[in-house]
Amino acid sequence: MAASKHVFQAPKGMRDFFPEDMAVRQHLERAWRSASIRHGFEEIGGPTFEHLDLFTIKSGEGIVSELFSFQRSGGDTDYALRPEFTPTLARMAASKGRSLPLPTKWFAIPDLFRAERPQRGRLREHRQWNVDLLGAPGPDADAEVIAVAVTALRGLGLGPADIRVRISHRGAAAGLLAACGVPGDRMAEAFSLVDRREKVPTEVFATQAAAIGLDEAGVARLDKIAASRLPATTQPTTIAEKHDLPVDAVSELTSLSVELDKRGLLPFCDWDLGIVRGLAYYTGTVWEIHDAAGTFRAVAGGGRYDELVGLFGGPTIPACGFGMGDVVLALLLEDRGLLDADHGVLSPRPDVFVVSSGDDQAEGLFIPLATSLRDAGLHVRHTFKAGRNIGKQLKEASGHLAKFAVILGDELDSGHMVVKDMTAGEQFKVPAGDLAAWLQRRLAGYAADKRSCEH
Amino acid sequence: MAASKHVFQAPKGMRDFFPEDMAVRQHLERAWRSASIRHGFEEIGGPTFEHLDLFTIKSGEGIVSELFSFQRSGGDTDYALRPEFTPTLARMAASKGRSLPLPTKWFAIPDLFRAERPQRGRLREHRQWNVDLLGAPGPDADAEVIAVAVTALRGLGLGPADIRVRISHRGAAAGLLAACGVPGDRMAEAFSLVDRREKVPTEVFATQAAAIGLDEAGVARLDKIAASRLPATTQPTTIAEKHDLPVDAVSELTSLSVELDKRGLLPFCDWDLGIVRGLAYYTGTVWEIHDAAGTFRAVAGGGRYDELVGLFGGPTIPACGFGMGDVVLALLLEDRGLLDADHGVLSPRPDVFVVSSGDDQAEGLFIPLATSLRDAGLHVRHTFKAGRNIGKQLKEASGHLAKFAVILGDELDSGHMVVKDMTAGEQFKVPAGDLAAWLQRRLAGYAADKRSCEH
Repeated sequence: MAASKHVFQAPKGMRDFFPEDMAVRQHLERAWRSASIRHGFEEIGGPTFEHLDLFTIKSGEGIVSELFSFQRSGGDTDYALRPEFTPTLARMAASKGRSLPLPTKWFAIPDLFRAERPQRGRLREHRQWNVDLLGAPGPDADAEVIAVAVTALRGLGLGPADIRVRISHRGAAAGLLAACGVPGDRMAEAFSLVDRREKVPTEVFATQAAAIGLDEAGVARLDKIAASRLPATTQPTTIAEKHDLPVDAVSELTSLSVELDKRGLLPFCDWDLGIVRGLAYYTGTVWEIHDAAGTFRAVAGGGRYDELVGLFGGPTIPACGFGMGDVVLALLLEDRGLLDADHGVLSPRPDVFVVSSGDDQAEGLFIPLATSLRDAGLHVRHTFKAGRNIGKQLKEASGHLAKFAVILGDELDSGHMVVKDMTAGEQFKVPAGDLAAWLQRRLAGYAADKRSCEH
Repeated sequence: MAASKHVFQAPKGMRDFFPEDMAVRQHLERAWRSASIRHGFEEIGGPTFEHLDLFTIKSGEGIVSELFSFQRSGGDTDYALRPEFTPTLARMAASKGRSLPLPTKWFAIPDLFRAERPQRGRLREHRQWNVDLLGAPGPDADAEVIAVAVTALRGLGLGPADIRVRISHRGAAAGLLAACGVPGDRMAEAFSLVDRREKVPTEVFATQAAAIGLDEAGVARLDKIAASRLPATTQPTTIAEKHDLPVDAVSELTSLSVELDKRGLLPFCDWDLGIVRGLAYYTGTVWEIHDAAGTFRAVAGGGRYDELVGLFGGPTIPACGFGMGDVVLALLLEDRGLLDADHGVLSPRPDVFVVSSGDDQAEGLFIPLATSLRDAGLHVRHTFKAGRNIGKQLKEASGHLAKFAVILGDELDSGHMVVKDMTAGEQFKVPAGDLAAWLQRRLAGYAADKRSCEH
């Protein structure tokens, strides 16, 4: 029986990245890495899977069903693909103990995994940028990590009309919840419930809210406050006045406001006491970045978690940071027309396409020339087709969006090559020995032109 | 009972990358990516885990014990962490069917996983550079992928005295094995056995060799030939003459030799009929890159596999490529003194460290200045310590290997800032409004100086 041809597919919720897809991801990663490095963060990385208990210690056994967990065949150790990077970061920081220099500024760009049913904006595997500032307790640190996130998004073309940083503070949110009737010892549950507010049916929410002390009036008040975002250019005390909260409840937002202003961030930010972040480990400022229209899931989420490193066996170190995934961000950029992979803006464009007339002299020089240009750092392509014809090769050059074509033809007799600027259409006769330097000068001008066009 | 503090560790054979480790990996990846792009390869990516049968179809069920495989909790689909990237690549190419443009030149830098006991140079997770050229059947394609590998290694500082590309051809190796007594229908087993030659005890090898028709004399002859590498600057016909093999057996190496020569690669290469590559899918040229002294495992391995895409349900497409992992390569670079992370050569160095005298004017400008320099693309750091003192801040700047320090002090009264070149020790008084442009000019000169120092 002949085996029929089996067509394989990527697992559900997992992605193949063809060159045009990878160009988008590289575009995001360049923006992430550039913003991180400009702010003095250093890149770290960790294992793709960890011991299972690294993830259950903080979140409880309930998380296991959301994990891809496994054992080595014949082994007895439980592993799980990492669903988030923070436990790895905390483990790494904890392992350094008191020798960790403070502040420590780290970023990472890991792949993360969730065993959930895939949804729009939420896949089983995604790449997430993580930024963490350890050892700095003040609002300057919170503002700095927000600055890193906004810098990357601005670098990708997003402005204050596209994205909003919605900021709250666990202290302010606790003040609000207390005012709505939640007792102090149910606060953690209340944060988790409020975080799920838009995901659970109204009746279920009401029942669960009642169980932690929020009556119907309390829920209504909470909903009203949560729905009333204020631009961060407004003093946080306005929120307290408006919603009849103690002024103390927003004092930490007031200090944060000063730090955001120094960094030019206020136009991007809103005060939003509806943001609580479900995860139990946040202790202070919490924030999410959303598209301004609220069409998509959160683009990023973060805050302060001063007890995390201690929880993983290390010293108590004040810490804040955020995560930003590639999936929602790419959807948002596409929606805003900020991805243009088809036009070659994101994919690396060939600097030079080498073209041969096909005669012996040209054929002999063809590959050695391509090799020497590559050694000089240029991105060089050429045809692989036999029976070369200059016109067809120039068409191929243009299909690849090459910036220049170098034509090896009769001019070789006088030691020259013809260089065609594929954008302007101009042709130049360049002495063979000067070619690499000539192209490098032109390409530097090309890059400068492109930069000036972007502004 | 108080919970004792649990100290977590990375799973066995998995790595934490602290900044100094990540700087090394980024250094490798930059060299890989640069060599790939200069040669016109486009980056792709795939899922970290695949359906288990993607890996068993080609290698048989025997591979399962070497895989980390699992099911989603409550699900019934078998998955496995990818042990290699080639099946994903073949699946992706096959999914395009006849619409795949030929040639297609792809590279990828995935994490790969092996459920084996970790050894020196072989971990449970590693990052591997994969380069594949699909749709070009000739030796020019084989030479091009070798050129990509060698370009990256040269970029990392390795020369022909450090690394050797050991090249064979399945046809030549088959000729050799036939001459040693292996019948045509046992050839695939013989390749696999010869590949394991150095890993199995002599007696075991002799028994297995006898089973496929290699008697003692045959094994001795095979070992002698395998041990006699010749520099590729020697004509391949010399091998045939020397070892009494038919000249036809090396004809494909002769064509390859011409293509390697055009790319300046012969000084890096050896003919080595002892290289067979165990994997069943190779069909033509096979090669490995080793350190010249033979101290480490192979740095890279590749060859031609013309039937692979067809095996995964696609059309038959000639193909060649290679994989190069990060583990052995980093060991080799370290051995050669080519990693110098401690001296900040590999980690991104701050362009500017902003220093404040601590007076009100300076403190007010401190963060806005850092922000504007970051917006101008510079890598900027500053102290997080309270109670600033210029001397201590300059010491911190120097600890971070900052290239320049900008000092906000009394000169602000006349609209100036002091810039200190941290390498030369020189100080300059720069008008505040010119600072970003002044630094960018200086840093461009800095980069040019550094480049000229490297040559």
